[in-house]
Amino acid sequence: MDLLLLLDLVGTAAFAASGAWSGVKREMDLFGVLVLGLVTATGGGTLRDLLIGDIPPFCLQHESYLYISIAAALAVFFGHRRLNRWQQPLQFFDAIGLGTFVIIGTGKGLTYGLGPLGAVMMGVMTATAGGALRDLLSGEVPLILRKEIYASACLVGGALLVTLRHTPLSPPLAALVAALTVIAIRLLALRYDWSLPRARS
Amino acid sequence: MDLLLLLDLVGTAAFAASGAWSGVKREMDLFGVLVLGLVTATGGGTLRDLLIGDIPPFCLQHESYLYISIAAALAVFFGHRRLNRWQQPLQFFDAIGLGTFVIIGTGKGLTYGLGPLGAVMMGVMTATAGGALRDLLSGEVPLILRKEIYASACLVGGALLVTLRHTPLSPPLAALVAALTVIAIRLLALRYDWSLPRARS
Amino acid sequence: MDLLLLLDLVGTAAFAASGAWSGVKREMDLFGVLVLGLVTATGGGTLRDLLIGDIPPFCLQHESYLYISIAAALAVFFGHRRLNRWQQPLQFFDAIGLGTFVIIGTGKGLTYGLGPLGAVMMGVMTATAGGALRDLLSGEVPLILRKEIYASACLVGGALLVTLRHTPLSPPLAALVAALTVIAIRLLALRYDWSLPRARS
Repeated sequence: MDLLLLLDLVGTAAFAASGAWSGVKREMDLFGVLVLGLVTATGGGTLRDLLIGDIPPFCLQHESYLYISIAAALAVFFGHRRLNRWQQPLQFFDAIGLGTFVIIGTGKGLTYGLGPLGAVMMGVMTATAGGALRDLLSGEVPLILRKEIYASACLVGGALLVTLRHTPLSPPLAALVAALTVIAIRLLALRYDWSLPRARS
Repeated sequence: MDLLLLLDLVGTAAFAASGAWSGVKREMDLFGVLVLGLVTATGGGTLRDLLIGDIPPFCLQHESYLYISIAAALAVFFGHRRLNRWQQPLQFFDAIGLGTFVIIGTGKGLTYGLGPLGAVMMGVMTATAGGALRDLLSGEVPLILRKEIYASACLVGGALLVTLRHTPLSPPLAALVAALTVIAIRLLALRYDWSLPRARS
Repeated sequence: MDLLLLLDLVGTAAFAASGAWSGVKREMDLFGVLVLGLVTATGGGTLRDLLIGDIPPFCLQHESYLYISIAAALAVFFGHRRLNRWQQPLQFFDAIGLGTFVIIGTGKGLTYGLGPLGAVMMGVMTATAGGALRDLLSGEVPLILRKEIYASACLVGGALLVTLRHTPLSPPLAALVAALTVIAIRLLALRYDWSLPRARS
């Protein structure tokens, strides 16, 4: 599945750019921007690997994830004046990352023997924990706890992947369907401003 | 010790309810409320298992902890209007969770060969780190760093358990005495509004 | 290298004091001050050990790190009125800790088979993640993301150590040179108020 690796790297760069952008907006220095880029791009997968016991985590086993994240963060740091023009493509690549990270995380959870709920949680965590860490380090309540269908799209995709694994569908095709579902929900939610119900008093 | 398992599950549900409640008060959406419930109930034990090397952590080995946490968080999300009536019983169940988590964590630290201080730290962490994560994710300075005898009750209970293990008391009885001590201190602290000294300038 | 162990313990005490001081300033109670001291002193090395797979982490294998941290935090809690007089020596010992933690972390990363970038990241993390956790728990955006040459000094020292390992220099001497470089940059940055460039709009 070389397509999966390609999408994984695209998503990594997009996530790193979103983290670096958050640092630039808060007027952090170069180091802070790099850290936010790295944490956003690799934090979710790292937490997943710690929990399932694949140590050292993926990004320390394959440093290309680190180099790509640093390159994307540097590009944002030095090119941030032209970044408005890039906002729409970035949201698109971010959605690709979301879908890819969910199926990688869910699949890896299943491979390491987790139950269905645990595997879906690993998928959601892979896709969202990096962004939550970014927000925490930026001094904000994590966006995924407050807004949009972001995390719910991941939940649906993870659950779909676990379900499809029990059908005759080939694993790569199941992964593709689940990833495209996440990406589609995410892009539609952005387009039509969907959101989840909130508790009200 | 089936009683211990029962108390563990009761405490898990109470902790999840307190996390979910924190999310409801901040008007988080359903996903945020579920995450806060799960993190509060399982965060402490998960951190403990990462540190002692029992991987995957307890809640990924036994998904019942996840299901109970989700059920409790859903109950709070949909029933929060009637929650005021539940406040007192919840504090009581929360105290039970506190005592149970301390002795489970301390005991597991000893089983995994930690020294006495490390084992007590694992006990305190099991009982308090979930709540600290809940506060961090809610954008607040963790309550345990600021207020009440909460964590100190855990310290006393953990230290008591380590001490009682060197006496002829049977391990289950030692655990019971230590857990009841934590629960009693916690309930008395709530009742009489005890607090620790603070540094003053 | 008994000198390294000595510097390590000095740095641990200095980091614990800085964490405890942060708690005292926020009027936390005794427990909060102890937690901030412990987390600041041992958080970075603990995160490193989780990531490279040396579990349980150093401070649970050698509890002396915990006892020293607690002693330093207690000293700050009870002696904080006289702490202004100690501010300059503390900054000096803190710089020693910074240099020592960087070379310990980077060296340990290499020993555990990480690549050069991963090893440098472990060094930087060992020296800075404890302080970042201290700031998060205090409700602040981590200082290292916003200010000063702190983390950059660590980056330089870690990269220098990885480079020097490819020269005929003996490992202890390489470590000494790298550590002194970090300490010198840090002290000069403090003295002359250096800072990194920031992105500007």
